[in-house]
Amino acid sequence: MLNQIKNPENLKKIPAKNLPDLCEEIRQVLIQKISTNGGHLAPNLGVVELTTALHYVFNAPTDKIVFDVSHQTYVHKMLTGRAQAFTDPKHYLDVNGFSNPKESPYDLFTMGHTSTSLSLACGLAKARDLQKQKHHVVAIIGDGSLSGGQAYEGLNNIAEQGGNIIIIVNDNEMSIAENHGGYYKNLEKLRATNGKAEDNFFRALGLDYIYEPNGNDVHALIKVLEKVKNCTTPTVIHIHTIKGCGYAPAMKNPEKFHYTAPFDPATGKHKFINQTENYTDITYQFIEKQMQSDPKLVTITSGTPNPTGFELNRRQKAGLQFVDVGIAEEHAVAYAAGLAKGGAHPIYGVQGSFLQRSFDQLHQDLALDSNPATLLVFGDHIHGMGGSTHNGFYDIVQLGSIPNLLYLAPISKQSYLQMLDWAINQTERSVAIRVPDQVINDPLSLNNKFTANSRIVINGNEIAIIAVGSAFPLAQQVVDTLNKKGIQPTLIDPICISELDEKLLTKIAKNHSLIITLEEGALAGGFGEKIASFYGDQNIKVHNFGFTTSLTADFKPNTFLKQNGFTVENITNYILKHR
Amino acid sequence: MLNQIKNPENLKKIPAKNLPDLCEEIRQVLIQKISTNGGHLAPNLGVVELTTALHYVFNAPTDKIVFDVSHQTYVHKMLTGRAQAFTDPKHYLDVNGFSNPKESPYDLFTMGHTSTSLSLACGLAKARDLQKQKHHVVAIIGDGSLSGGQAYEGLNNIAEQGGNIIIIVNDNEMSIAENHGGYYKNLEKLRATNGKAEDNFFRALGLDYIYEPNGNDVHALIKVLEKVKNCTTPTVIHIHTIKGCGYAPAMKNPEKFHYTAPFDPATGKHKFINQTENYTDITYQFIEKQMQSDPKLVTITSGTPNPTGFELNRRQKAGLQFVDVGIAEEHAVAYAAGLAKGGAHPIYGVQGSFLQRSFDQLHQDLALDSNPATLLVFGDHIHGMGGSTHNGFYDIVQLGSIPNLLYLAPISKQSYLQMLDWAINQTERSVAIRVPDQVINDPLSLNNKFTANSRIVINGNEIAIIAVGSAFPLAQQVVDTLNKKGIQPTLIDPICISELDEKLLTKIAKNHSLIITLEEGALAGGFGEKIASFYGDQNIKVHNFGFTTSLTADFKPNTFLKQNGFTVENITNYILKHR
Repeated sequence: MLNQIKNPENLKKIPAKNLPDLCEEIRQVLIQKISTNGGHLAPNLGVVELTTALHYVFNAPTDKIVFDVSHQTYVHKMLTGRAQAFTDPKHYLDVNGFSNPKESPYDLFTMGHTSTSLSLACGLAKARDLQKQKHHVVAIIGDGSLSGGQAYEGLNNIAEQGGNIIIIVNDNEMSIAENHGGYYKNLEKLRATNGKAEDNFFRALGLDYIYEPNGNDVHALIKVLEKVKNCTTPTVIHIHTIKGCGYAPAMKNPEKFHYTAPFDPATGKHKFINQTENYTDITYQFIEKQMQSDPKLVTITSGTPNPTGFELNRRQKAGLQFVDVGIAEEHAVAYAAGLAKGGAHPIYGVQGSFLQRSFDQLHQDLALDSNPATLLVFGDHIHGMGGSTHNGFYDIVQLGSIPNLLYLAPISKQSYLQMLDWAINQTERSVAIRVPDQVINDPLSLNNKFTANSRIVINGNEIAIIAVGSAFPLAQQVVDTLNKKGIQPTLIDPICISELDEKLLTKIAKNHSLIITLEEGALAGGFGEKIASFYGDQNIKVHNFGFTTSLTADFKPNTFLKQNGFTVENITNYILKHR
Repeated sequence: MLNQIKNPENLKKIPAKNLPDLCEEIRQVLIQKISTNGGHLAPNLGVVELTTALHYVFNAPTDKIVFDVSHQTYVHKMLTGRAQAFTDPKHYLDVNGFSNPKESPYDLFTMGHTSTSLSLACGLAKARDLQKQKHHVVAIIGDGSLSGGQAYEGLNNIAEQGGNIIIIVNDNEMSIAENHGGYYKNLEKLRATNGKAEDNFFRALGLDYIYEPNGNDVHALIKVLEKVKNCTTPTVIHIHTIKGCGYAPAMKNPEKFHYTAPFDPATGKHKFINQTENYTDITYQFIEKQMQSDPKLVTITSGTPNPTGFELNRRQKAGLQFVDVGIAEEHAVAYAAGLAKGGAHPIYGVQGSFLQRSFDQLHQDLALDSNPATLLVFGDHIHGMGGSTHNGFYDIVQLGSIPNLLYLAPISKQSYLQMLDWAINQTERSVAIRVPDQVINDPLSLNNKFTANSRIVINGNEIAIIAVGSAFPLAQQVVDTLNKKGIQPTLIDPICISELDEKLLTKIAKNHSLIITLEEGALAGGFGEKIASFYGDQNIKVHNFGFTTSLTADFKPNTFLKQNGFTVENITNYILKHR
């Protein structure tokens, strides 16, 4: 049936009684594709019926449907002209994993961060009302995403604005991991009482509320959507769905199958197990040991325990020393500040892309008073970037501009562990560490005793290359290439990327005439520009290599690096030409 | 009595029956000092009894008391050893207007942005529990601050964490202006039912709840605080206070007296009325006229309608075309994105310091899809900065790094209006405008037709000065001074500060050897560094003038400018030395 559906109009012509079969077909297609290519399996399995019902009842793209995060839009894509990208392996890469207006008029926003759908829908509805248009506006938000403060701001404003806005709360009792926060007890009570519990969170905010327990029953969903469709006041439909619905391994372990690498559909076992040493394991092993000997050490996550390696059994083992605050990056940073002020030492592990939510809290709550917390910034290297919605480009811009915050970029495992050990044992500063990608063992990259001063790794002359963290291996290759041509450049590990080591920079000015900087991050506002400014009025040339191209949804790391000049050949040629 | 209170221990020795007299004394002291020096009058008048009761019942600084925003800590300062700074005009400047750990151990955090107290208190309580300490943790948050998403994240996490945390919701029925958002109806119902209304917002989040209607009765407050003091689960005390309590003009117009300039205490009339032309009036007049002819134009504020001049009667006049989203900067930006996508044109006016809350939404929701909204960034110039808690330093860092977002810096009224007119009538881009300080009338600063290209204002040679917006007048003075010495520098208005005009920069490279950049904002990550990087490998010297010193709580604009080298003499001398 699926391949016959070129648009939602086709879907509407299918007799309602056949829809469960369509849903079953969609489910099998999801499992088949994702088991081959990887992707967000469990969330999409949970919304097969919901998405089908939405496109059956509403008239997109005239009616506006906004999926929060949009990692659960695979079914939406299938039903809006993009089925082939799911049914035909040759076309698997035709669509990306998030909604994307460049891909289809049915996708309204390029999305990937949580908790924004309500604000976006509120704006769409206001635009409709100002223009006296008549279409419907629907937002679909998961229970997990509702832990983000922006979702609350959105609910509050939708309630005040009024009019036809339908909010589907897709309650699958899970965030990526288990949910955390007081309001989840409210959802639990609402589920247990068929929506009748006292002190209804949504009603408290002034929203109408309906509970639908059968969130994986397409007929029940069509019925409730038809009922609410023409509401004149904002209405929450709280539906209960099953994360991973219809695929036993995902239902059994929805956290593992939230986003999954390729797996064997028969068993649910991952096809490839990465056994190389990685920073997640290194981080977990270090923290776990430290926490045992220091009860004041607390690890924080904001709904994404994976980068620091805190799987369920490890979270349980850590007990009170591990806190998942929900998808609440703003709270996480201010909470860390409170912990630090109170004499504990917090470690907050977070993807750089999501830490963008905390720019103000990093400034105001954490660093302004130099509260001693440690932040571990994951994914801000070329292999950690997941396209335009999950880029790790702007961490140096952000963390490199905040007074009193020390941002460190290790180049090796040894350097990383030394920084981490130093950071959690000092009480003077707010410290962030840019966790690199590839694990490089290099005992020589240690300072004797940690200091944030830059370090000359290879002493040369004429040309100096300053390479930030994950860009260091590329710089080493450039040095090797130049060595073969008889040129002996200096290679510098800056260690700290929020403050310049002016003493060292002044020293190398004496016997160097060309400085190259290299960082896997945005050029504009980054580390290299600070170096260019420092040497601006001296007779030294500076060239900054950083990213100048925006990430696209379907970016490929190597192509992207090449586009931005991050190749041994290009950098070497630049140096040969400009020395 | 007040001058006898050197610390809260002294306060505790005062017989309870005398406390109303003390409160009356405090109130008069507040009115006297603020009428002379200006300050946050109405919020402090509202919490005289609450603060007295808190220090009577709790044992700070062992017990931890966190005031949200901390603009209402004047009374707290009086009762914790700093009374002289309020009673003795010679000492009026001894303390600043926000809590400040450098000032007193009773002040736990340097604070000034809203909605953070709950996260901070949650962290303090967790640190206490990890260390098996026994003190109390209290957060005081206004009804206005509860519209911020971070406050919701804090409530959620406090409920989950459990233990002794007391949350005082200081409900004075006001934010800076009137409140907006669905949850305010809940507060209204709770007040009307003496706390008994259905669907209690706080209980919905899993918090215990007590209502105290007499928030300006010190005895009633002591009673309820004593009752809750040793709670073992997080408890909200919802108290009803009167903003401006005890001073008739402030009670009548609490918005005007939220923060006030010096006034005549007898009449409440402001002593000085600023009649010079200002960008608030200019902005309002322009927008108001445009909105009348274009019903799709919407002005948004996040709880601070003052910068765009939308006073109460003007808000009423604007009707559906003015939206106050509450203190919800994250929502505001995504809401603007939704409006823009839906075909309306939003104008969001906001202080740069508060826009730090929206870094992620600016990236992801607004600019990633180039949704055409206009942002007006106020206060990001030296005279708009209110110390370390309200600095406007980081807007260029922030907005200058976001792909697809055009950040413009007008140097004159004419240039500003041209940019604004262009921005709201285009549909291609997200645009932000850095609203300057001093209104300069300069019809010659117009492009014929607006383009974002830089403009050579004075054509010279050898030396070029590129001066951003509010720094332009200083650059002009430098040019004048150099002219007198027979030097003819070029003066450039960059117009756009998020992208470089590479054509113009390349052109001036031919006959200039020294480029000076000047911007009122952080040097690190700012505009000047982009210029330094651009010229990095050319034979042109670049020197960036920007702010390198952090703002202190009690900063003075002129001293600060001098410290950072922003004087005609210093810049001229630099040029003479380095040309």
